[in-house]
Amino acid sequence: MELHGRSIVGGAPVFEDGGESFRAFDPSEGREFGPEVFEASRATVARALEEAAHAFDVYRRKGADEVALFLESIARHVEALGDELVELARAETALPVERLKGERGRTTAQLRMFAEVVREGSWVEAVIDRAAPERKPLPKPDLRRMLVPLGPVAVFGASNFPLAFSVAGGDTASALAAGCPVVVKGHPAHPGTSELVARAVVAAAEESLMPAGVFSLLQGRSPELSLALVEHPRTKAVGFTGSLRVGRALFDAAAQRPEPIPVYAEMGSVNPVFVLPGALRERGAEFAEGLRQSVTLGTGQFCTNPGLVVAVRGETFEQFLDRTDELFAAAPPGTMLNPGILRGYGEGVERLRRLAKLGAGGAGADASRTQAAAYVFSTDAETFLDNHELGEEVFGPSTLVVGCQGVEELRRVAEGLEGALTATIHGTAEDLREYAWLVRALEQKAGRLVFNGFPTGVEVSAAMQHGGPYPATTDARTTSVGTAAIKRFARPVCYQNFPQDALPLELRDDNPRGLWRLVDNRWTRD
Amino acid sequence: MELHGRSIVGGAPVFEDGGESFRAFDPSEGREFGPEVFEASRATVARALEEAAHAFDVYRRKGADEVALFLESIARHVEALGDELVELARAETALPVERLKGERGRTTAQLRMFAEVVREGSWVEAVIDRAAPERKPLPKPDLRRMLVPLGPVAVFGASNFPLAFSVAGGDTASALAAGCPVVVKGHPAHPGTSELVARAVVAAAEESLMPAGVFSLLQGRSPELSLALVEHPRTKAVGFTGSLRVGRALFDAAAQRPEPIPVYAEMGSVNPVFVLPGALRERGAEFAEGLRQSVTLGTGQFCTNPGLVVAVRGETFEQFLDRTDELFAAAPPGTMLNPGILRGYGEGVERLRRLAKLGAGGAGADASRTQAAAYVFSTDAETFLDNHELGEEVFGPSTLVVGCQGVEELRRVAEGLEGALTATIHGTAEDLREYAWLVRALEQKAGRLVFNGFPTGVEVSAAMQHGGPYPATTDARTTSVGTAAIKRFARPVCYQNFPQDALPLELRDDNPRGLWRLVDNRWTRD
Repeated sequence: MELHGRSIVGGAPVFEDGGESFRAFDPSEGREFGPEVFEASRATVARALEEAAHAFDVYRRKGADEVALFLESIARHVEALGDELVELARAETALPVERLKGERGRTTAQLRMFAEVVREGSWVEAVIDRAAPERKPLPKPDLRRMLVPLGPVAVFGASNFPLAFSVAGGDTASALAAGCPVVVKGHPAHPGTSELVARAVVAAAEESLMPAGVFSLLQGRSPELSLALVEHPRTKAVGFTGSLRVGRALFDAAAQRPEPIPVYAEMGSVNPVFVLPGALRERGAEFAEGLRQSVTLGTGQFCTNPGLVVAVRGETFEQFLDRTDELFAAAPPGTMLNPGILRGYGEGVERLRRLAKLGAGGAGADASRTQAAAYVFSTDAETFLDNHELGEEVFGPSTLVVGCQGVEELRRVAEGLEGALTATIHGTAEDLREYAWLVRALEQKAGRLVFNGFPTGVEVSAAMQHGGPYPATTDARTTSVGTAAIKRFARPVCYQNFPQDALPLELRDDNPRGLWRLVDNRWTRD
Repeated sequence: MELHGRSIVGGAPVFEDGGESFRAFDPSEGREFGPEVFEASRATVARALEEAAHAFDVYRRKGADEVALFLESIARHVEALGDELVELARAETALPVERLKGERGRTTAQLRMFAEVVREGSWVEAVIDRAAPERKPLPKPDLRRMLVPLGPVAVFGASNFPLAFSVAGGDTASALAAGCPVVVKGHPAHPGTSELVARAVVAAAEESLMPAGVFSLLQGRSPELSLALVEHPRTKAVGFTGSLRVGRALFDAAAQRPEPIPVYAEMGSVNPVFVLPGALRERGAEFAEGLRQSVTLGTGQFCTNPGLVVAVRGETFEQFLDRTDELFAAAPPGTMLNPGILRGYGEGVERLRRLAKLGAGGAGADASRTQAAAYVFSTDAETFLDNHELGEEVFGPSTLVVGCQGVEELRRVAEGLEGALTATIHGTAEDLREYAWLVRALEQKAGRLVFNGFPTGVEVSAAMQHGGPYPATTDARTTSVGTAAIKRFARPVCYQNFPQDALPLELRDDNPRGLWRLVDNRWTRD
């Protein structure tokens, strides 16, 4: 498919944009390629949102089946892009082909999962309190509540998941599933991948007879474009995955609007891992190997990368450090997503080098091919507690091991942590009983607690929580992975004393959609 | 009980505060009374939050029964204040004794309702996805998610509900139920009522063996105090009911914190009422009477007061206007809560007088006794659409009737509305079929849609939605009335591969609390 390098609004490329442009960049070759990609103008942003608002009136009234078929059609059209998509994504991101195929599978599985969620329908949280006209002193009205969609959603594609958290990724799938049109700002690190997937979404929208404004793609890389998208009055919510700096800027812009809107920014985190004494003693070497794998997986470019390891010092701790040093010394370099991310990683590593002790790493990275080396650093708890910067995320394949003098110091490290997406404990059954307080402490710090595992690898399911206290996200009450992500794009509406035939199907007495509903305080499908 | 006029922190009055002070004010007499009330200093704010954070570590681990008993104990201690509370509240607010007794009943019923919610326990939204160790290519982990409390919550008492939305009102009850300590900023219009209720909460905390920091009351009236409370790093969420100006200021302060926190500000709204042709024809006079009652109820001091009536012009419309004029001309004046609110009402009425046509009203109000007269104004849709100020809330017993040339103009009025707590439709069954589009339009504008009723009167139940798009609230995804209000003060945590005995009771296989849970995508109590 020939790429046009244009934003796509209302189902068609925007040839009017003629200002700034850029090209795709192959990080492993260190060179630009592909057609000129034109930055969306302010007028294009406005048109995308106006079309989305217009489409919203139609789209939110579509039946659940129509929306589900649309999502499934997107999945099919993405699959139909075949090897061309995988090959282009590989060239733009340097992610391995197998990883990209897996990510494509995750993307289409997410779309189909949300189709199933929409078709099943109970996600609208229907609650019915039936009338009690005889109640004294006042009759009780008939009240029926359900979730309705918020309106057009701005989605920002992430660089590290060019498929699963990008144009047709989790944010887009969950917003469309909720009944919201989507305007995606494509990540400039993979413009061709964005265009291919956007064209698949447009084809699916056409096939499914959806209004053309239900989906748009804006190409560009200026901060002004991102702000214009968040500040547009038709935008009603924002989904973002990326850096703290950019996420916070979008959050601030949204909070300062005349009408503030929710921003779901997932901004990564340091993902602390606590290794308790029994685990260190019984399987320290095994843990070191698991850590090395988790830290270097995907060249460390995961929001859930374990950037901090905390343990109590002693003989087995020293053995563990030696083993980690060996493993990281032997770790091969990996290609990062783009030179900007490599630069950020370099700065993070310099910070660690300045404040902590280098254990091992740094071998054989060729910067002209955007390669990064793996590193492991170590420090003592006192230094860690005195240097707030040591607790900040370094995006890439490095980790910092903090050795504590005893349980009390470990407790202070745990309690001083910033919000995180995940927190992990490695321990024996006995460790866990002794450190029950640590579980309670980490509940306050993270959205997901992992026992005897590694935080990389985020299951897409109903119980997943991918989110956490600030600065991990701007809204710890929500998840950006799993079926619950749909709830971010909806709000409740209550109907008081409405006749049956004026109610949405979801709230009628005969429950024609067979939903799970809370009726007079009891869950039922009757 | 002798009032001390002091803030209460950690279960004891703060005698250190010695700066600014003020007194209670009896609006119906137009005079100050009672002891000096001392403004909480910055140090007192900080101490309240530190005590709350300390209490949180204990409080969030209390069993459901202990928390439920605590809430029920608060209800009993509030009731034990007897006539003294009602009499003092009457003097401070000029609300009638019967209304205050009803409000007390609502307050204690809310506390008991949340006790029941906590005891039943399903509010934590437990979701369990069981492991599939054999899954290919990767085993599926065991994932279990539930809601956990956010931390200390700042609650701002509202002037118009000195009991039900004040010290032990809905925000406090739902935050305590969620497991969050509460620091209340008492409304300066009822400092004695606040103190009495706070002492009841403190007595209940002592009786229930709760940590002393679980509840504090801060007295004061400076904006700096409110901001200090919102900006304190230990504060994790804010509940507020009051004006748009103050609510927005608190929201802005919270959004600008290094760690932003959620603000649930309910800021009132204009609560539009659409009267469709059939209803106007069949029962215009009856509607006029209902409207007059709803507008003047409680001297119009409800967030859900219907400040806007929209209808299509014609013969029956003119008859309706005449009837409303008659009714409002005969409406007696009412005493407002305080001179500040009366002043705000006066400004609002002046604005309406300047931009619209006075129908009737204004009779017999004595400003020295803080009395307000009822007013009805009217205008045409064109004037309404051209003057944005006409769509803003006037807090008090006035309403504006907008006459439309036809359905198209009525549609433009509906689509141009700002966010509201409620929107009401009066119509016949036939009207409702013809105006189905109006229901769909109003779903986008309000949190609760009322059919053939009036928006005043907010049921406290599971299906209630008291909230709506900005500027009605700062978070349309939540409600401040009803059992769902508890969810504002919690966030999900997911436990991955945890052994049974390290899991919270709510997530264990044997479901010892008998909760409704979503297990492998199916709701069950097994």
